[in-house]
Amino acid sequence: MSVKTKDEFKNLIEEIKSQDGYREPIGFGIARVDLGQLNTDKVLQATFPVVNWNENFGSSAIFTKALELSSVKVDFSASEFVAEIDENFVKNAKDMFAPYIEEAKGDAHKNVQLIIWLEKLLASGSFKIVFIFEDTNPASVESVYLKLYALSLGKAKLRTLNLDGAFGLLTNVAWVDGVLPIELDFLRANEIELKLSGKYPNIVSVDKFPRFLQHVIPADNTRILDSSKVRMGAQLAGGTTVMPGASYINFNAGTEGPVMVEGRISSSAIVKSGADVGGGASILGVLSGTNGNPISIGENTLLGANSVTGIPVGDACIIDAGVAILEGTKIKVSKAELDKINEVNGTNLDGEFFKGLELAGLNGVHFRVDSKNGSVVAFRSQREVKLNSELH
Amino acid sequence: MSVKTKDEFKNLIEEIKSQDGYREPIGFGIARVDLGQLNTDKVLQATFPVVNWNENFGSSAIFTKALELSSVKVDFSASEFVAEIDENFVKNAKDMFAPYIEEAKGDAHKNVQLIIWLEKLLASGSFKIVFIFEDTNPASVESVYLKLYALSLGKAKLRTLNLDGAFGLLTNVAWVDGVLPIELDFLRANEIELKLSGKYPNIVSVDKFPRFLQHVIPADNTRILDSSKVRMGAQLAGGTTVMPGASYINFNAGTEGPVMVEGRISSSAIVKSGADVGGGASILGVLSGTNGNPISIGENTLLGANSVTGIPVGDACIIDAGVAILEGTKIKVSKAELDKINEVNGTNLDGEFFKGLELAGLNGVHFRVDSKNGSVVAFRSQREVKLNSELH
Amino acid sequence: MSVKTKDEFKNLIEEIKSQDGYREPIGFGIARVDLGQLNTDKVLQATFPVVNWNENFGSSAIFTKALELSSVKVDFSASEFVAEIDENFVKNAKDMFAPYIEEAKGDAHKNVQLIIWLEKLLASGSFKIVFIFEDTNPASVESVYLKLYALSLGKAKLRTLNLDGAFGLLTNVAWVDGVLPIELDFLRANEIELKLSGKYPNIVSVDKFPRFLQHVIPADNTRILDSSKVRMGAQLAGGTTVMPGASYINFNAGTEGPVMVEGRISSSAIVKSGADVGGGASILGVLSGTNGNPISIGENTLLGANSVTGIPVGDACIIDAGVAILEGTKIKVSKAELDKINEVNGTNLDGEFFKGLELAGLNGVHFRVDSKNGSVVAFRSQREVKLNSELH
Repeated sequence: MSVKTKDEFKNLIEEIKSQDGYREPIGFGIARVDLGQLNTDKVLQATFPVVNWNENFGSSAIFTKALELSSVKVDFSASEFVAEIDENFVKNAKDMFAPYIEEAKGDAHKNVQLIIWLEKLLASGSFKIVFIFEDTNPASVESVYLKLYALSLGKAKLRTLNLDGAFGLLTNVAWVDGVLPIELDFLRANEIELKLSGKYPNIVSVDKFPRFLQHVIPADNTRILDSSKVRMGAQLAGGTTVMPGASYINFNAGTEGPVMVEGRISSSAIVKSGADVGGGASILGVLSGTNGNPISIGENTLLGANSVTGIPVGDACIIDAGVAILEGTKIKVSKAELDKINEVNGTNLDGEFFKGLELAGLNGVHFRVDSKNGSVVAFRSQREVKLNSELH
Repeated sequence: MSVKTKDEFKNLIEEIKSQDGYREPIGFGIARVDLGQLNTDKVLQATFPVVNWNENFGSSAIFTKALELSSVKVDFSASEFVAEIDENFVKNAKDMFAPYIEEAKGDAHKNVQLIIWLEKLLASGSFKIVFIFEDTNPASVESVYLKLYALSLGKAKLRTLNLDGAFGLLTNVAWVDGVLPIELDFLRANEIELKLSGKYPNIVSVDKFPRFLQHVIPADNTRILDSSKVRMGAQLAGGTTVMPGASYINFNAGTEGPVMVEGRISSSAIVKSGADVGGGASILGVLSGTNGNPISIGENTLLGANSVTGIPVGDACIIDAGVAILEGTKIKVSKAELDKINEVNGTNLDGEFFKGLELAGLNGVHFRVDSKNGSVVAFRSQREVKLNSELH
Repeated sequence: MSVKTKDEFKNLIEEIKSQDGYREPIGFGIARVDLGQLNTDKVLQATFPVVNWNENFGSSAIFTKALELSSVKVDFSASEFVAEIDENFVKNAKDMFAPYIEEAKGDAHKNVQLIIWLEKLLASGSFKIVFIFEDTNPASVESVYLKLYALSLGKAKLRTLNLDGAFGLLTNVAWVDGVLPIELDFLRANEIELKLSGKYPNIVSVDKFPRFLQHVIPADNTRILDSSKVRMGAQLAGGTTVMPGASYINFNAGTEGPVMVEGRISSSAIVKSGADVGGGASILGVLSGTNGNPISIGENTLLGANSVTGIPVGDACIIDAGVAILEGTKIKVSKAELDKINEVNGTNLDGEFFKGLELAGLNGVHFRVDSKNGSVVAFRSQREVKLNSELH
């Protein structure tokens, strides 16, 4: 294929897209895949230098064409498509990208840059292309990774992607400093030699998932003081700081703005801008105590040290240090404070005792244990709630 | 020594065992020992590729014979015996293992495999053989390590081995990525050169103990998301997951079945199959608040996030998030709930208030703080207690 | 400059010091500086093999003279002075140190040893000399590091150094196993090549600060089971153990004697000899809930598992597991117990209920939640308070 000008390139794209059954992918990318040392059919990890998510449809068209020229037919009717790529694919893709080769630098034309580098590095590993056409249960390690990347790069919103069955697809591997992941069976088969020679590897974790920092470059103002604390598939907005004490952010969980994280953000939980997850604070996840209700923590809300949050919490709230607010926790609210809470939320709550779930999502609430008598109480917090113009 | 057939091998074993004073070891193995860089008499670490624990007594007989042929006499009257091994030892052991050399592959004849590899790798380090004849206080770094291995490999049950004085025997060293442990004195002596040249090592921990994952390959369905969280000498049953938030499992502590670990399992504590140690939950150890009573957590029991458990807890129990149940905690139980607890446990407890220790080990109990008045209460949990057929 | 005898050396020092405007530095040292891979003006890290803090004023005089001989004039009127050093500087310093070269070994004459090594290693990196003349806001990355070293080496007391603005001076970098720190922009610029070739680095943290163990060799009886748990700028007295569960020690915080640390010591907090920071216990910092009052924890005091401490606490105190004592917590004290507390402290407190802040710093107090009614109570702890002879 010879493509000389940008116009020829655009015409080619149109031609490809007009093919019968052609479908634009939700996401696509080319990954280096690290295979098992013993079982070379097992993909231990897929690393994407460039991730495309609802974007760059020209490049995906070119890639499908390059596959076709390598005699690989993309099945657009499936929910996803994965294929190995070879020299031929790379050469054809590069030929079609010809009008953009010169300007593919810095942030421009990342897929073109990828092909240029692939030409040089194809022999250094095994590479696959992945297209996701429908967000159904993933069917391959590669598509699981592509979805985790989409979440961690902030290209897909938390809780929006289907990762059901991901644990069944991924392999539990030894993640090792400075080298590629290792099959546990390989360690078993070579334990005697490795140990006697003093070359047994330094394993940093054994897990199905890698860590966020193994694949994602955070924003300049984001800090992660211990890479073990953030799993791949988590999402951290710029300005988030993750301290190394008791914190943890699971996949499909994270922050939507600058947040100080010193506690646990379980899978499915989201913390909004300006919130503070205190030391040892636990935000429960859908698999651990919330009956399937994912928890959001509102803007400018403080979860005190060693608090436990089992309900969604609105903006400008405070849960005091050491206090646990679960769905069934009975919480006393005085008439005067309830009036203030109703006013700022535009609600009509009535009564003296509420279950945690009945106060879920309200803004401007301060949860505390009365240290004179041990009762859990709620009152209007002294934090300002930003008015939502649509509400008022 | 020439041993040609398996029958000759067996006869030789009988001959060795019939020697005056011969004694079968509780445990034995050959370790690579990493020595101090300055003080080469100090053993910083002992690495066992193969651990024998109440098993493989033929191999131990062969090893004592091979030592004898190298003019090293095993003292069977001592509680343990440690000796350096040399080419001669390896050659003699290999000669005696001759009938098994061919079939020593995969999981078969690990001690024979070890000798075959030792022949090739003897020059790459320093190697010692260790026999433990009696489970008294360990007397060497090597026997401490052998006992830690026995625990971590599940060959000895937790709490059954004598490790008194282990801290006094082990050296505090710098554990470093990708290389062998380093004496702190070596770092001090070479600090200027190492720092100026940009070669100061990346120290991951300074401790007397190594980490579990430095020595033990976990089961395929076990996950440890951060190697720092499990000390060598801990025991993890297959299916256990150790999350990276606030969790920690000390030596001589661990799990007896699949357990989700997001909290602390202190030394001497055991968690049974199906239990869940919530985020930040603390199970106290004999050195920290339990007056020397080691704690077991029963099957299918849930310790809520940031709870603290200072008493043994039975099966199918729940301690709510944020609740601390210590030996002296006064706990209110209504008559109706006490009846149910008595029924499921076959006990005859009577009264309204109980100290934590009085409820220790009971099955099917739910511990909670009444959020209306701050009192700690217990009632029959909604989890089914599996009936123990011996009891009923 | 030729200096042949120790007398000549001393005369030279006197001469240098008598120069007009000469000023002795609070601290000084020579650092290896690791520069940005793309922005080579950015100092990512400064590593000091030898730190001088209110000491070794002879060496600082020699260094100012060696700079002068390299045509670099130290500005003694500024709060700090930083300059690159070159071969000339090293040669001149070595010539002036001549009478001490022979005996510069082991712990003797560390600055002389440094110059000897620098002569060999100058080409292996970039090196700067730093003088701090006044403890004002630091003005450079190098002086921030020198102050962090002074704290971490125990040469300056915690809370005594001015680090205002340090966060603005330091660069957020990727700290990587076994190699020097990496600019995030460098990773971005080279992501495609690094990932395709399987050489993407193993990032252990992204932070402005390095870890304590990257720069400081702890005492032989100090243990840090996970390097991520102690930030550079923390101070750990010998005998301190930092466990890997939920613990963390921030910069300008730490211990003044042997302490068991299983919880969080926030920036500005100090824990005294013999205290025990239980698993998951949180000591709040000036930036998190203490209204700017830094917290000290007294000798032989126990902070129970998952407790939260928001006030200074005296010697021989206990805060029970799971209990939060904040400035505003209302605490009930019976008359009899108040008498005992007054007696041991020499105070005259009167009343039945106290706010946390009113009990701040008292010795021999046990804080507990009464599990029968949820009220927070304080009573005289059963721990002996060592009498302060000045008081009695």
